Amino acid sequence: MKRKIWLSAITMNSSGHISPGLWAHPRDESADYTDLEYWTELARTLERGKFDALFLADATGIHDVYRGSADAALAQGVGAPINDPFLVVPAMAVVTDHLGFGITGTVTYEPPYLFARRITTLDHLTKGRIAWNIVTGYLDSAAKGAGLLNQSSHDDRYDVADEYMEVVYKLWEGSWEDDAVVRDKKNRVFADPAKIHKVQHSSKHFQLDAYHLSEPSPQRTPVLFQAGASNRGVDFAAKHAEAVFITGPSKNVVKARVDDVRKRTAALGRDPLATLIITLMTVIPGRTDEEALAKYEDYQRYADLEGALSVFGAWTGIDFSTYDFDAPLEYIESNAIQSRIADFTDDNSRAWTVREVGRFMEIGGPAPIIVGSAERVADELIGWVEETGIDGFNLAYALSPESYIDFVDLVVPELQRRGVYKQDYEASTLRETLRGPGQARLPEDHPGAQFRAAPVQAPQRKIA
Amino acid sequence: MKRKIWLSAITMNSSGHISPGLWAHPRDESADYTDLEYWTELARTLERGKFDALFLADATGIHDVYRGSADAALAQGVGAPINDPFLVVPAMAVVTDHLGFGITGTVTYEPPYLFARRITTLDHLTKGRIAWNIVTGYLDSAAKGAGLLNQSSHDDRYDVADEYMEVVYKLWEGSWEDDAVVRDKKNRVFADPAKIHKVQHSSKHFQLDAYHLSEPSPQRTPVLFQAGASNRGVDFAAKHAEAVFITGPSKNVVKARVDDVRKRTAALGRDPLATLIITLMTVIPGRTDEEALAKYEDYQRYADLEGALSVFGAWTGIDFSTYDFDAPLEYIESNAIQSRIADFTDDNSRAWTVREVGRFMEIGGPAPIIVGSAERVADELIGWVEETGIDGFNLAYALSPESYIDFVDLVVPELQRRGVYKQDYEASTLRETLRGPGQARLPEDHPGAQFRAAPVQAPQRKIA
Repeated sequence: MKRKIWLSAITMNSSGHISPGLWAHPRDESADYTDLEYWTELARTLERGKFDALFLADATGIHDVYRGSADAALAQGVGAPINDPFLVVPAMAVVTDHLGFGITGTVTYEPPYLFARRITTLDHLTKGRIAWNIVTGYLDSAAKGAGLLNQSSHDDRYDVADEYMEVVYKLWEGSWEDDAVVRDKKNRVFADPAKIHKVQHSSKHFQLDAYHLSEPSPQRTPVLFQAGASNRGVDFAAKHAEAVFITGPSKNVVKARVDDVRKRTAALGRDPLATLIITLMTVIPGRTDEEALAKYEDYQRYADLEGALSVFGAWTGIDFSTYDFDAPLEYIESNAIQSRIADFTDDNSRAWTVREVGRFMEIGGPAPIIVGSAERVADELIGWVEETGIDGFNLAYALSPESYIDFVDLVVPELQRRGVYKQDYEASTLRETLRGPGQARLPEDHPGAQFRAAPVQAPQRKIA
Repeated sequence: MKRKIWLSAITMNSSGHISPGLWAHPRDESADYTDLEYWTELARTLERGKFDALFLADATGIHDVYRGSADAALAQGVGAPINDPFLVVPAMAVVTDHLGFGITGTVTYEPPYLFARRITTLDHLTKGRIAWNIVTGYLDSAAKGAGLLNQSSHDDRYDVADEYMEVVYKLWEGSWEDDAVVRDKKNRVFADPAKIHKVQHSSKHFQLDAYHLSEPSPQRTPVLFQAGASNRGVDFAAKHAEAVFITGPSKNVVKARVDDVRKRTAALGRDPLATLIITLMTVIPGRTDEEALAKYEDYQRYADLEGALSVFGAWTGIDFSTYDFDAPLEYIESNAIQSRIADFTDDNSRAWTVREVGRFMEIGGPAPIIVGSAERVADELIGWVEETGIDGFNLAYALSPESYIDFVDLVVPELQRRGVYKQDYEASTLRETLRGPGQARLPEDHPGAQFRAAPVQAPQRKIA
């Protein structure tokens, strides 16, 4: 194992996340997502377990493919209501010192100028603990909220995203030199204007002629996460991402995706092993295998089939309500649907029914669930790392915060005993947890590095 | 006095705010604005003093009129660098239970759909302590950052703002009925889709066909603040604002503005006395008049003339660097400048010099400074309320947090002794501090109230 296992928890500013229906379990507290205390307690738990980060997913539309309406999603609170992910971070930062925060933000609806300031502000307040999960939006319902008639084509969105990245790199890396702000009280100099540069940008979608509003934060550019699985999405990740979040049902699928990301990253001249790759996983641990299994069976009794189908419907564009739940899908429809299902399940050996598809997705989304004692869980996690080349896991919850408390109490000590997980935090910024102490900034081989401010020796503007 | 004096502190997510240069005073800590602890300590101080709110100003451009560049502003950190105001609020909410937060947000650069979610999220996390200071943007440099060529005309911006308000009213008031979300674990019903309505909106600048992403927060629509001083701005305030923030140099000017706001509010069928009106004020208190005066003289030694002129230059569009600092302006330029100065100073009895203008603005902006013992300060504040009809004050700082600590330790007890200031918090949401317990929502006579969700008796959509 080339480095310690990297761990984040994945959630969303909503109830239930990707375990539809489980909010109704008596011990689940995720329906309290509107309370500050829910978030501060979650953050304390994760920091107690030395988690590297909390990953906040987001969606700016509501699942409305199933039955052609949002009713199934709304009835179970699946993905909606959903609050802003940025605003829980400062509260969690108050009660933690090391936990990183990966925040999902879209490049589709918000001008880069103000978005860049929001990220920099958070990176200041957390002293460098911010990652940005770059998304381009995928729901028509989100486009309609933002005043657009519908989503632009997939590839167009990535073209916009590439331009957007150039603008934010210029703002984060190029506007203020490292020593521009001096806060010299004795000589009454706050900053040296000669070291602060206007960003001038003109491209198809963005025009800019402005200073970045914020002075440099510890990381400047946040750690860049990406989760795109499409061909164009992986290209985008290979170019921009420092960390890639993969979702796959099996080691075969995940390994192929890991290899693909590393190959394409290397082809662009970047260090392929420097990119952190994590995969979605749900862990249900117990003091014994039997206890864990009983817990899993208890959780399953709360799973909501229609909620799961509303999520999978939004992801695939297929309205599963129009099919017999218990008939194999291939007998009533073209194989296109089975092919989509196989993409998510890595199982094309049989014809799935709608009910089977829903059950496959009911806890933790289309990803593996590991159920068992700490020893069994540790064996499995280490096996995943060794056999697929991933660097760690994005852990979904069945119940929140129970799934994380269980993991911290039961699994973390076992991983530590085996030497595959850190005993304590070592780095001070999030990027340093990926790249090592002293590496708080974008590496030289990253495309964002080319937009760094001109050296001090060649000032572009004279001092007033 | 018709009600207790309402108090807020005004600051910005930057150093120095409207006391340019005073960041360099040895006891000033405002240059630590990038630290969470700066904000949590400030919030604790204000709550200790039973302040109603912290008001966060904002600007999304940099003052660049003085000398035709941003150098003077950047050198003293005047208005820039400036971080996002929303993101310090959740941190302060963790350490307080009652303090309200007035946040400046522009309607010019961000789609209403996502902005509405950000406000609702904060209102949830603070349990109903959010006000929104509605601005339409005023700096060309901000427009250039957002990718616009320059600011649209003043009146156009208010037309856009009126449309924007209609969209956010529909999202906040009309999308989710009060009892739509039930969180009924026993029956496994999170929400009733029949009580959740799509917002459909089509106007010149905004198209929308979407649910509000967030369930209703304690106040739904945040308390609406407005600070527009122009004719069109006051009309906008009369229509939408529940609280108006006035800046004026003298009781005469402030009283005329108070009367104007109340008259125009009444003309629109709203209760004119229900609108809270506060004015900008700086207070420098001491245990004695002499101590206070010595403190004031000490502060003045740190004031930065060019910083003050860069602020006033941005507000007026006048580049004061082109004039002799010590020559009366009327001798070298048309009286238009003196007329602009008189607007800010209420003094057209003499020809001002540039240096005098700068000094007038050097601590706390173009507003009065009260210097003296607690008794003198209390006399003055009460006089302002009685003679102008205002309801309270937005207190600028000379030094932060010193100005607020001094006010809380010295002035608050005196105001309490005189019975003009609350002994303790009584209301649980911010709107209730304006309107009284039980009044957490927009009043019936407010234009936003007409967009409330249809009554439950007449569902618009059937349950799944």
